[in-house]
Amino acid sequence: MTPFSHSLAQSVGSLNETTLISCIHNWLGRATPPPPAGIGDDCAVLPAVQGSPLLTIDPVVYGKHFDDSLPPEQVAAKLLKRNLSDIAAMGGRPHAAVLGLMLSANLSMTWLERFFEGLKVSSLTYKTHIVGGDICSAEGRTFAATLTLYGEASRPVQRLGGQPGDRVAVTGHLGGSLLGKHAAFIPRLTEGQWLAARPEVKAMMDLTDGLAKDLPAMLPPQACARLDTASVPLDEAAGRMAERSGQSPLYHACCDGEDYELLVILDGQADLSPLLEAWSRDFDLPLTLIGKFADASPETDGHLTDAANGNILFPRGGYQHLSGQ
Amino acid sequence: MTPFSHSLAQSVGSLNETTLISCIHNWLGRATPPPPAGIGDDCAVLPAVQGSPLLTIDPVVYGKHFDDSLPPEQVAAKLLKRNLSDIAAMGGRPHAAVLGLMLSANLSMTWLERFFEGLKVSSLTYKTHIVGGDICSAEGRTFAATLTLYGEASRPVQRLGGQPGDRVAVTGHLGGSLLGKHAAFIPRLTEGQWLAARPEVKAMMDLTDGLAKDLPAMLPPQACARLDTASVPLDEAAGRMAERSGQSPLYHACCDGEDYELLVILDGQADLSPLLEAWSRDFDLPLTLIGKFADASPETDGHLTDAANGNILFPRGGYQHLSGQ
Repeated sequence: MTPFSHSLAQSVGSLNETTLISCIHNWLGRATPPPPAGIGDDCAVLPAVQGSPLLTIDPVVYGKHFDDSLPPEQVAAKLLKRNLSDIAAMGGRPHAAVLGLMLSANLSMTWLERFFEGLKVSSLTYKTHIVGGDICSAEGRTFAATLTLYGEASRPVQRLGGQPGDRVAVTGHLGGSLLGKHAAFIPRLTEGQWLAARPEVKAMMDLTDGLAKDLPAMLPPQACARLDTASVPLDEAAGRMAERSGQSPLYHACCDGEDYELLVILDGQADLSPLLEAWSRDFDLPLTLIGKFADASPETDGHLTDAANGNILFPRGGYQHLSGQ
Repeated sequence: MTPFSHSLAQSVGSLNETTLISCIHNWLGRATPPPPAGIGDDCAVLPAVQGSPLLTIDPVVYGKHFDDSLPPEQVAAKLLKRNLSDIAAMGGRPHAAVLGLMLSANLSMTWLERFFEGLKVSSLTYKTHIVGGDICSAEGRTFAATLTLYGEASRPVQRLGGQPGDRVAVTGHLGGSLLGKHAAFIPRLTEGQWLAARPEVKAMMDLTDGLAKDLPAMLPPQACARLDTASVPLDEAAGRMAERSGQSPLYHACCDGEDYELLVILDGQADLSPLLEAWSRDFDLPLTLIGKFADASPETDGHLTDAANGNILFPRGGYQHLSGQ
């Protein structure tokens, strides 16, 4: 469904700002509390939290993060879940979000209502209030939504903290997200909180740009990441992408991005059996050991390498945001 | 100065994302702390606050909030200060901000560097760390920056809370902001905190859309706002605007928007002399009584009226965001 309408009467351009905000208020329903905790005051007043406050920001933009093929409800869900995945990667819990909208006058009211229906359902599902926002007009065919998510973590787990000798694990299956998972993924909030409570966990991030780019981002200086390529849990979509592209399924698992699985660095000095057994009891989702951090040579410093032969894997792999490749 | 460059080598399109983020990191300098408190992790980890946490979001967009005539440093300052003004209106203190950028490949690196220089200076001035963000590419000639500001207030003062009989006051001078103040204003943080600590203050907001729209937004049901039109503190720019437009200076003071002064509702039961005297001792900026809230007739319900004759003032006045008028 396209976000834009040829009929002015069915477009946001037919409304004034107060009316549009009133519509949004109605569409969000229970997902927004009364002011000052919700929409309607200069700032949203948030509840005080026990742990460390967390803040993250991510957008969805028409033509970049979605197109006419994605239902508006899923566009909204993707927007919230991209941010939730960042909270998950710190081992945190979400609380509240504010939304910045840029939209052209020809944006369809039907599309926008369905977008907010999706945002309501997703925010109720993930216990995240929508507490405020801003709307501004734009030219052409524009829908850009920027969401800022506020949360907390008892122990915020960072990206950095791993050392040579530490083990690398990943949740779920990787690759081929463009075939559906990029919009239908589940942010690993429960799993992230569970992992943050384990002392064996030294660092985490969520896989948004692919192993080939994200795992090197977790390395300390003078280290490399050795990947046991045979152990990488391939999504069946990685295989389908490989049939189309002529690349290997492993290439897609390492370079596609938008898996939104957790990449976890585990203490190499610890016996990991109790953690892995406890995980299996608590979750159906796999947690797979896929490699380790090691001291690097000048050639392998900062790189993802194949543990079997030491070769650098996909040196320019992973999603490049500015070029969109 | 235009944000866009004809030379690819001098545009952001010549860089990959990692390099651009590294530039931004350098440009911001002391305005961004090391991760996880600053740029570089999945979420920014914020310091715990004593009072109520506050969250607000506002953008600046090329062609809408600024054009080639505004220096890039002032674009950045305006972005931060628009959000600071919302914190000021709740009587709060700012702490940290995240920045979402949408930019086209032809955005000039020189312009962007000067934008971040302005953001650094402003955020150091107002003690606000830039702790994270997101960059995404856009088509055409695009620069859109959305800033989310996190703060706290000991006593968050809301927009609503005034009753018939309460007095209306405003800081500073109003009108003609387009002639300069829209970018050069000072967010009234100190004044907002001072006012929030006074029991006579029942409600506040910042004047962004003009008295004609913002004062009615503070009214309880079945009430109107009576304006002593002669007492409205006119900015000299309101007079200059009136010479151009043929409207009255009062029209510009009520309908121009972007004054970013505080609109304050004071308890009508209280003796206000001690507050006004204490204000005069502490600030050079005027705090002017300009009217009161009163019971409304069905005709005047929810309106701004002229205290002299009861007529409704500028019924469609104030800035309309979607139409840009």
